[in-house]
Amino acid sequence: MKLHTYYRSSASYRVRIALNLKGLAAEESYVHLSKNGGEQFAPAFDAINPQHLLPVLEDGAVVLTQSLAIIEYLDETRPGQALLPPDAAGRARVRALSQAIACDIHPINNLRVLKYLGAELGVSDQQKNAWYRHWVGLGLAALERQLASSPDTGLFCHGDQPTMADCCLVPQLYNARRFDCDLSAFPTIANIGIRCEALDAFARARPDLQPDAE
Amino acid sequence: MKLHTYYRSSASYRVRIALNLKGLAAEESYVHLSKNGGEQFAPAFDAINPQHLLPVLEDGAVVLTQSLAIIEYLDETRPGQALLPPDAAGRARVRALSQAIACDIHPINNLRVLKYLGAELGVSDQQKNAWYRHWVGLGLAALERQLASSPDTGLFCHGDQPTMADCCLVPQLYNARRFDCDLSAFPTIANIGIRCEALDAFARARPDLQPDAE
Repeated sequence: MKLHTYYRSSASYRVRIALNLKGLAAEESYVHLSKNGGEQFAPAFDAINPQHLLPVLEDGAVVLTQSLAIIEYLDETRPGQALLPPDAAGRARVRALSQAIACDIHPINNLRVLKYLGAELGVSDQQKNAWYRHWVGLGLAALERQLASSPDTGLFCHGDQPTMADCCLVPQLYNARRFDCDLSAFPTIANIGIRCEALDAFARARPDLQPDAE
Repeated sequence: MKLHTYYRSSASYRVRIALNLKGLAAEESYVHLSKNGGEQFAPAFDAINPQHLLPVLEDGAVVLTQSLAIIEYLDETRPGQALLPPDAAGRARVRALSQAIACDIHPINNLRVLKYLGAELGVSDQQKNAWYRHWVGLGLAALERQLASSPDTGLFCHGDQPTMADCCLVPQLYNARRFDCDLSAFPTIANIGIRCEALDAFARARPDLQPDAE
Protein backbone atom coordinates (compact mmCIF):
# COMPACT_ATOMS: atom_id res chain seq x y z
CA MET A 1 0.00 0.00 0.00
CA LYS A 2 1.07 3.56 -0.65
CA LEU A 3 -0.26 6.53 1.32
CA HIS A 4 -0.10 10.00 -0.20
CA THR A 5 0.13 12.20 2.84
CA TYR A 6 1.21 15.52 4.35
CA TYR A 7 2.22 15.74 7.98
CA ARG A 8 -0.19 18.57 8.79
CA SER A 9 -3.16 17.22 6.80
CA SER A 10 -5.82 16.39 9.36
CA ALA A 11 -7.45 13.82 7.09
CA SER A 12 -4.08 12.11 6.47
CA TYR A 13 -3.52 12.05 10.23
CA ARG A 14 -6.82 10.14 10.62
CA VAL A 15 -5.66 7.47 8.19
CA ARG A 16 -2.20 7.23 9.78
CA ILE A 17 -3.89 6.45 13.11
CA ALA A 18 -6.17 3.86 11.49
CA LEU A 19 -3.23 2.13 9.79
CA ASN A 20 -1.39 2.01 13.12
CA LEU A 21 -4.45 0.68 14.99
CA LYS A 22 -4.79 -2.08 12.39
CA GLY A 23 -1.06 -2.83 12.61
CA LEU A 24 -0.56 -2.01 8.93
CA ALA A 25 2.38 -0.34 7.22
CA ALA A 26 2.17 1.74 4.05
CA GLU A 27 4.89 3.27 1.92
CA GLU A 28 4.50 7.05 2.13
CA SER A 29 4.55 9.64 -0.63
CA TYR A 30 4.74 13.22 0.62
CA VAL A 31 2.64 15.95 -0.95
CA HIS A 32 3.47 19.40 0.39
CA LEU A 33 0.29 21.45 0.42
CA SER A 34 1.97 24.86 0.16
CA LYS A 35 5.48 24.39 -1.26
CA ASN A 36 5.93 24.82 -5.03
CA GLY A 37 2.51 26.47 -5.27
CA GLY A 38 0.99 23.36 -3.68
CA GLU A 39 2.24 19.96 -4.79
CA GLN A 40 -1.36 18.70 -4.80
CA PHE A 41 -1.83 20.64 -8.05
CA ALA A 42 1.19 19.09 -9.78
CA PRO A 43 0.36 16.81 -12.74
CA ALA A 44 1.58 13.67 -10.93
CA PHE A 45 -0.88 14.11 -8.07
CA ASP A 46 -3.64 15.64 -10.17
CA ALA A 47 -3.72 12.40 -12.17
CA ILE A 48 -4.29 10.44 -8.96
CA ASN A 49 -6.85 12.72 -7.31
CA PRO A 50 -8.52 15.53 -9.28
CA GLN A 51 -9.92 16.76 -5.97
CA HIS A 52 -6.35 17.79 -5.05
CA LEU A 53 -7.02 16.69 -1.49
CA LEU A 54 -5.19 14.34 0.83
CA PRO A 55 -4.98 11.54 1.73
CA VAL A 56 -4.98 9.05 -1.11
CA LEU A 57 -4.31 5.39 -0.46
CA GLU A 58 -3.24 3.08 -3.26
CA ASP A 59 -3.90 -0.58 -2.56
CA GLY A 60 -2.54 -2.35 -5.63
CA ALA A 61 -4.65 -1.07 -8.52
CA VAL A 62 -7.33 0.36 -6.22
CA VAL A 63 -6.98 4.12 -5.69
CA LEU A 64 -8.89 5.31 -2.63
CA THR A 65 -9.78 8.89 -1.72
CA GLN A 66 -11.59 10.44 1.27
CA SER A 67 -10.27 9.55 4.71
CA LEU A 68 -13.46 7.99 6.10
CA ALA A 69 -13.94 5.84 3.01
CA ILE A 70 -10.30 4.73 3.30
CA ILE A 71 -10.67 3.83 6.98
CA GLU A 72 -13.81 1.76 6.34
CA TYR A 73 -12.05 0.05 3.42
CA LEU A 74 -9.09 -0.87 5.62
CA ASP A 75 -11.46 -2.17 8.28
CA GLU A 76 -13.36 -4.29 5.77
CA THR A 77 -10.36 -5.74 3.96
CA ARG A 78 -7.75 -6.17 6.71
CA PRO A 79 -7.78 -8.26 9.89
CA GLY A 80 -6.94 -6.89 13.33
CA GLN A 81 -8.67 -4.50 15.69
CA ALA A 82 -12.10 -3.46 14.40
CA LEU A 83 -12.52 0.29 13.81
CA LEU A 84 -16.30 0.05 13.53
CA PRO A 85 -18.67 -1.75 15.93
CA PRO A 86 -20.35 -5.05 14.99
CA ASP A 87 -23.94 -3.74 15.27
CA ALA A 88 -25.73 -1.44 12.80
CA ALA A 89 -26.77 1.13 15.44
CA GLY A 90 -23.22 1.26 16.76
CA ARG A 91 -21.78 1.66 13.27
CA ALA A 92 -24.27 4.46 12.60
CA ARG A 93 -23.21 6.19 15.81
CA VAL A 94 -19.49 5.92 15.04
CA ARG A 95 -20.07 7.14 11.48
CA ALA A 96 -22.19 10.04 12.73
CA LEU A 97 -19.57 11.10 15.30
CA SER A 98 -16.90 10.86 12.59
CA GLN A 99 -18.97 12.86 10.11
CA ALA A 100 -19.77 15.51 12.74
CA ILE A 101 -16.04 16.24 12.58
CA ALA A 102 -15.18 15.30 8.99
CA CYS A 103 -18.19 17.03 7.41
CA ASP A 104 -19.24 19.75 9.82
CA ILE A 105 -16.05 21.08 11.41
CA HIS A 106 -12.99 20.28 9.35
CA PRO A 107 -13.93 21.25 5.75
CA ILE A 108 -15.07 24.73 6.79
CA ASN A 109 -11.67 25.33 8.40
CA ASN A 110 -9.56 23.65 5.75
CA LEU A 111 -6.53 25.46 4.32
CA ARG A 112 -8.19 26.22 0.97
CA VAL A 113 -11.15 27.87 2.70
CA LEU A 114 -8.93 30.01 4.94
CA LYS A 115 -6.97 31.03 1.83
CA TYR A 116 -10.16 32.05 0.01
CA LEU A 117 -11.27 34.12 3.02
CA GLY A 118 -8.00 36.04 2.92
CA ALA A 119 -7.34 36.32 -0.80
CA GLU A 120 -10.87 36.77 -2.19
CA LEU A 121 -12.74 38.38 0.69
CA GLY A 122 -9.94 40.38 2.31
CA VAL A 123 -10.58 38.82 5.71
CA SER A 124 -7.88 39.67 8.29
CA ASP A 125 -5.81 37.05 10.11
CA GLN A 126 -7.64 37.93 13.31
CA GLN A 127 -11.02 37.35 11.66
CA LYS A 128 -9.75 34.09 10.15
CA ASN A 129 -8.71 32.88 13.59
CA ALA A 130 -12.13 33.85 14.97
CA TRP A 131 -13.76 31.93 12.07
CA TYR A 132 -11.65 28.88 12.87
CA ARG A 133 -12.47 28.99 16.57
CA HIS A 134 -16.16 29.59 15.90
CA TRP A 135 -16.62 26.38 13.89
CA VAL A 136 -14.42 24.31 16.19
CA GLY A 137 -16.24 25.63 19.26
CA LEU A 138 -19.68 25.04 17.77
CA GLY A 139 -18.82 21.56 16.54
CA LEU A 140 -17.03 20.36 19.66
CA ALA A 141 -19.74 21.77 21.97
CA ALA A 142 -22.32 19.61 20.19
CA LEU A 143 -19.97 16.62 20.16
CA GLU A 144 -19.30 17.02 23.89
CA ARG A 145 -23.04 16.87 24.60
CA GLN A 146 -23.51 13.86 22.32
CA LEU A 147 -20.64 12.00 23.99
CA ALA A 148 -21.41 13.02 27.58
CA SER A 149 -25.10 12.07 27.32
CA SER A 150 -24.74 8.64 25.74
CA PRO A 151 -24.32 5.33 27.57
CA ASP A 152 -22.48 4.13 24.45
CA THR A 153 -19.55 6.43 25.23
CA GLY A 154 -16.87 4.57 27.15
CA LEU A 155 -13.17 5.14 27.61
CA PHE A 156 -13.25 6.16 23.95
CA CYS A 157 -15.92 7.75 21.73
CA HIS A 158 -17.74 4.44 21.38
CA GLY A 159 -17.09 1.83 24.04
CA ASP A 160 -13.72 0.96 25.47
CA GLN A 161 -11.76 0.49 22.25
CA PRO A 162 -10.77 3.20 19.76
CA THR A 163 -12.91 3.42 16.63
CA MET A 164 -13.00 5.55 13.48
CA ALA A 165 -14.55 8.32 15.58
CA ASP A 166 -11.40 8.56 17.71
CA CYS A 167 -9.30 8.59 14.51
CA CYS A 168 -11.22 11.77 13.60
CA LEU A 169 -11.33 13.35 17.06
CA VAL A 170 -7.61 13.39 17.83
CA PRO A 171 -6.51 15.27 14.67
CA GLN A 172 -9.32 17.79 15.26
CA LEU A 173 -8.07 18.36 18.81
CA TYR A 174 -4.51 18.75 17.55
CA ASN A 175 -5.67 21.44 15.12
CA ALA A 176 -7.81 23.13 17.76
CA ARG A 177 -4.74 23.49 19.98
CA ARG A 178 -2.72 24.90 17.07
CA PHE A 179 -5.33 27.65 16.74
CA ASP A 180 -5.52 28.24 20.53
CA CYS A 181 -9.15 27.15 20.77
CA ASP A 182 -10.48 27.05 24.33
CA LEU A 183 -11.23 23.38 25.06
CA SER A 184 -11.96 23.74 28.78
CA ALA A 185 -15.71 23.33 28.27
CA PHE A 186 -15.26 19.87 26.73
CA PRO A 187 -14.12 17.53 29.51
CA THR A 188 -15.46 14.31 27.96
CA ILE A 189 -13.69 15.07 24.70
CA ALA A 190 -10.50 16.09 26.51
CA ASN A 191 -10.41 12.87 28.53
CA ILE A 192 -10.96 10.71 25.46
CA GLY A 193 -8.21 12.67 23.73
CA ILE A 194 -5.78 12.02 26.60
CA ARG A 195 -6.56 8.28 26.55
CA CYS A 196 -6.07 8.14 22.78
CA GLU A 197 -2.81 10.06 22.78
CA ALA A 198 -1.40 7.70 25.40
CA LEU A 199 -1.68 4.87 22.87
CA ASP A 200 1.25 4.19 20.59
CA ALA A 201 -0.97 4.03 17.47
CA PHE A 202 -2.11 7.62 18.02
CA ALA A 203 1.24 8.92 19.28
CA ARG A 204 3.19 7.68 16.26
CA ALA A 205 0.73 9.36 13.87
CA ARG A 206 1.31 12.85 15.26
CA PRO A 207 2.15 15.48 12.63
CA ASP A 208 5.41 16.61 14.21
CA LEU A 209 6.74 13.05 14.24
CA GLN A 210 6.29 12.46 10.50
CA PRO A 211 9.30 12.27 8.18
CA ASP A 212 8.02 15.27 6.17
CA ALA A 213 7.48 17.48 9.25
CA GLU A 214 9.23 20.84 9.13
CA MET B 1 -39.62 5.56 11.82
CA LYS B 2 -39.74 9.32 12.15
CA LEU B 3 -37.73 11.68 9.95
CA HIS B 4 -36.99 15.20 11.19
CA THR B 5 -36.70 17.14 7.97
CA TYR B 6 -36.92 20.47 6.18
CA TYR B 7 -37.89 20.65 2.53
CA ARG B 8 -34.84 22.69 1.51
CA SER B 9 -32.29 20.82 3.63
CA SER B 10 -29.96 19.14 1.19
CA ALA B 11 -28.99 16.43 3.67
CA SER B 12 -32.68 15.69 4.41
CA TYR B 13 -33.28 15.45 0.66
CA ARG B 14 -30.57 12.74 0.45
CA VAL B 15 -32.33 10.66 3.09
CA ARG B 16 -35.76 11.17 1.49
CA ILE B 17 -34.35 9.73 -1.74
CA ALA B 18 -32.78 6.79 0.12
CA LEU B 19 -36.04 6.00 1.92
CA ASN B 20 -37.89 6.07 -1.41
CA LEU B 21 -35.29 3.86 -3.13
CA LYS B 22 -35.62 1.32 -0.30
CA GLY B 23 -39.43 1.52 -0.49
CA LEU B 24 -39.66 2.75 3.11
CA ALA B 25 -42.07 5.23 4.64
CA ALA B 26 -41.30 7.45 7.64
CA GLU B 27 -43.53 9.79 9.59
CA GLU B 28 -42.20 13.32 9.07
CA SER B 29 -41.58 16.06 11.60
CA TYR B 30 -40.87 19.46 10.05
CA VAL B 31 -38.14 21.69 11.41
CA HIS B 32 -38.10 25.12 9.78
CA LEU B 33 -34.50 26.30 9.62
CA SER B 34 -35.27 30.03 9.56
CA LYS B 35 -38.78 30.57 10.98
CA ASN B 36 -39.05 31.41 14.71
CA GLY B 37 -35.33 32.15 14.84
CA GLY B 38 -34.64 28.65 13.54
CA GLU B 39 -36.71 25.78 14.91
CA GLN B 40 -33.54 23.66 15.06
CA PHE B 41 -32.56 25.68 18.15
CA ALA B 42 -35.87 25.09 19.97
CA PRO B 43 -35.60 22.92 23.12
CA ALA B 44 -37.58 20.05 21.56
CA PHE B 45 -35.12 19.63 18.69
CA ASP B 46 -32.04 20.58 20.70
CA ALA B 47 -32.77 17.60 22.96
CA ILE B 48 -32.75 15.29 19.91
CA ASN B 49 -29.71 16.72 18.12
CA PRO B 50 -27.36 19.18 19.87
CA GLN B 51 -25.72 19.74 16.47
CA HIS B 52 -28.94 21.56 15.43
CA LEU B 53 -28.60 20.02 11.98
CA LEU B 54 -31.00 18.03 9.86
CA PRO B 55 -31.91 15.31 9.18
CA VAL B 56 -32.50 13.14 12.22
CA LEU B 57 -34.07 9.71 11.86
CA GLU B 58 -35.66 7.99 14.83
CA ASP B 59 -35.96 4.23 14.47
CA GLY B 60 -37.68 3.13 17.67
CA ALA B 61 -35.28 4.08 20.45
CA VAL B 62 -32.35 4.60 18.06
CA VAL B 63 -31.75 8.26 17.22
CA LEU B 64 -29.64 8.68 14.10
CA THR B 65 -27.88 11.83 12.89
CA GLN B 66 -25.76 12.62 9.81
CA SER B 67 -27.31 11.80 6.44
CA LEU B 68 -24.63 9.39 5.21
CA ALA B 69 -24.67 7.43 8.48
CA ILE B 70 -28.47 7.27 8.24
CA ILE B 71 -28.39 6.01 4.66
CA GLU B 72 -25.87 3.28 5.50
CA TYR B 73 -27.97 2.29 8.54
CA LEU B 74 -31.09 1.98 6.39
CA ASP B 75 -29.16 -0.08 3.87
CA GLU B 76 -27.82 -2.41 6.57
CA THR B 77 -31.08 -2.90 8.46
CA ARG B 78 -33.74 -2.88 5.73
CA PRO B 79 -34.27 -5.16 2.74
CA GLY B 80 -34.78 -3.91 -0.79
CA GLN B 81 -32.52 -2.25 -3.32
CA ALA B 82 -28.92 -2.00 -2.09
CA LEU B 83 -27.58 1.55 -1.83
CA LEU B 84 -23.96 0.40 -1.49
CA PRO B 85 -22.14 -2.13 -3.70
CA PRO B 86 -21.35 -5.66 -2.47
CA ASP B 87 -17.54 -5.32 -2.82
CA ALA B 88 -15.21 -3.35 -0.53
CA ALA B 89 -13.58 -1.37 -3.36
CA GLY B 90 -17.01 -0.45 -4.73
CA ARG B 91 -18.24 0.60 -1.31
CA ALA B 92 -15.12 2.72 -0.83
CA ARG B 93 -15.75 4.39 -4.20
CA VAL B 94 -19.40 5.13 -3.45
CA ARG B 95 -18.50 6.46 0.00
CA ALA B 96 -15.73 8.62 -1.46
CA LEU B 97 -18.03 10.08 -4.14
CA SER B 98 -20.65 10.74 -1.46
CA GLN B 99 -18.12 12.37 0.86
CA ALA B 100 -16.70 14.50 -1.95
CA ILE B 101 -20.13 16.16 -1.91
CA ALA B 102 -21.16 15.75 1.74
CA CYS B 103 -17.79 16.81 3.21
CA ASP B 104 -16.12 18.96 0.58
CA ILE B 105 -18.90 20.91 -1.14
CA HIS B 106 -22.04 21.08 0.95
CA PRO B 107 -20.85 22.09 4.46
CA ILE B 108 -18.88 25.07 3.15
CA ASN B 109 -22.05 26.36 1.46
CA ASN B 110 -24.49 25.49 4.21
CA LEU B 111 -26.95 28.12 5.45
CA ARG B 112 -25.13 28.71 8.74
CA VAL B 113 -21.85 29.41 6.91
CA LEU B 114 -23.49 31.86 4.48
CA LYS B 115 -25.10 33.58 7.47
CA TYR B 116 -21.73 33.92 9.24
CA LEU B 117 -20.17 35.39 6.09
CA GLY B 118 -22.86 38.07 5.99
CA ALA B 119 -23.39 38.81 9.67
CA GLU B 120 -19.85 38.47 11.05
CA LEU B 121 -17.67 39.32 8.06
CA GLY B 122 -19.90 41.80 6.26
CA VAL B 123 -19.68 39.87 3.01
CA SER B 124 -22.12 41.13 0.33
CA ASP B 125 -24.80 38.98 -1.28
CA GLN B 126 -22.85 39.10 -4.53
CA GLN B 127 -19.69 37.83 -2.79
CA LYS B 128 -21.73 35.13 -1.03
CA ASN B 129 -23.07 33.94 -4.37
CA ALA B 130 -19.53 33.91 -5.79
CA TRP B 131 -18.40 31.91 -2.74
CA TYR B 132 -21.21 29.42 -3.29
CA ARG B 133 -20.44 29.01 -6.98
CA HIS B 134 -16.71 28.71 -6.32
CA TRP B 135 -17.04 25.65 -4.04
CA VAL B 136 -19.73 24.04 -6.20
CA GLY B 137 -17.66 24.59 -9.34
CA LEU B 138 -14.46 23.29 -7.78
CA GLY B 139 -16.16 20.25 -6.26
CA LEU B 140 -18.22 19.29 -9.30
CA ALA B 141 -15.27 19.77 -11.68
CA ALA B 142 -13.30 17.18 -9.70
CA LEU B 143 -16.31 14.89 -9.45
CA GLU B 144 -16.90 15.14 -13.20
CA ARG B 145 -13.33 14.00 -13.85
CA GLN B 146 -13.60 11.16 -11.33
CA LEU B 147 -16.87 9.96 -12.87
CA ALA B 148 -15.90 10.45 -16.53
CA SER B 149 -12.58 8.63 -16.15
CA SER B 150 -13.77 5.54 -14.29
CA PRO B 151 -15.02 2.30 -15.83
CA ASP B 152 -17.08 1.86 -12.65
CA THR B 153 -19.34 4.76 -13.64
CA GLY B 154 -22.43 3.48 -15.42
CA LEU B 155 -25.86 4.93 -15.99
CA PHE B 156 -25.49 6.20 -12.43
CA CYS B 157 -22.48 7.24 -10.31
CA HIS B 158 -21.54 3.61 -9.66
CA GLY B 159 -22.86 1.04 -12.10
CA ASP B 160 -26.36 0.94 -13.50
CA GLN B 161 -28.34 1.24 -10.26
CA PRO B 162 -28.59 4.31 -8.03
CA THR B 163 -26.44 4.24 -4.90
CA MET B 164 -25.77 6.53 -1.93
CA ALA B 165 -23.59 8.64 -4.25
CA ASP B 166 -26.61 9.49 -6.42
CA CYS B 167 -28.59 10.31 -3.26
CA CYS B 168 -25.93 12.97 -2.61
CA LEU B 169 -25.46 14.18 -6.18
CA VAL B 170 -29.06 15.09 -6.98
CA PRO B 171 -29.62 17.44 -3.99
CA GLN B 172 -26.28 19.11 -4.77
CA LEU B 173 -27.39 19.67 -8.37
CA TYR B 174 -30.71 21.03 -7.17
CA ASN B 175 -28.90 23.55 -4.97
CA ALA B 176 -26.43 24.42 -7.72
CA ARG B 177 -29.34 25.36 -10.00
CA ARG B 178 -30.89 27.48 -7.23
CA PHE B 179 -27.68 29.49 -7.11
CA ASP B 180 -27.38 29.70 -10.92
CA CYS B 181 -24.16 27.69 -11.04
CA ASP B 182 -22.93 26.98 -14.55
CA LEU B 183 -23.13 23.19 -14.97
CA SER B 184 -22.37 23.04 -18.71
CA ALA B 185 -18.83 21.75 -18.13
CA PHE B 186 -20.11 18.67 -16.29
CA PRO B 187 -21.84 16.46 -18.90
CA THR B 188 -21.34 13.15 -17.07
CA ILE B 189 -22.82 14.60 -13.90
CA ALA B 190 -25.68 16.23 -15.81
CA ASN B 191 -26.60 12.98 -17.57
CA ILE B 192 -26.58 11.02 -14.33
CA GLY B 193 -28.73 13.75 -12.80
CA ILE B 194 -31.26 13.50 -15.60
CA ARG B 195 -31.46 9.70 -15.24
CA CYS B 196 -31.93 10.00 -11.48
CA GLU B 197 -34.59 12.67 -11.68
CA ALA B 198 -36.58 10.54 -14.11
CA LEU B 199 -36.99 7.95 -11.35
CA ASP B 200 -39.98 8.20 -9.06
CA ALA B 201 -37.83 7.77 -5.90
CA PHE B 202 -35.85 10.89 -6.74
CA ALA B 203 -38.75 12.90 -8.15
CA ARG B 204 -40.94 12.44 -5.05
CA ALA B 205 -38.10 13.63 -2.78
CA ARG B 206 -37.79 17.04 -4.48
CA PRO B 207 -37.92 19.99 -2.08
CA ASP B 208 -40.82 21.78 -3.80
CA LEU B 209 -43.01 18.67 -3.55
CA GLN B 210 -42.66 18.29 0.23
CA PRO B 211 -45.60 19.05 2.56
CA ASP B 212 -43.58 21.78 4.31
CA ALA B 213 -42.55 23.53 1.06
CA GLU B 214 -43.41 27.22 0.89
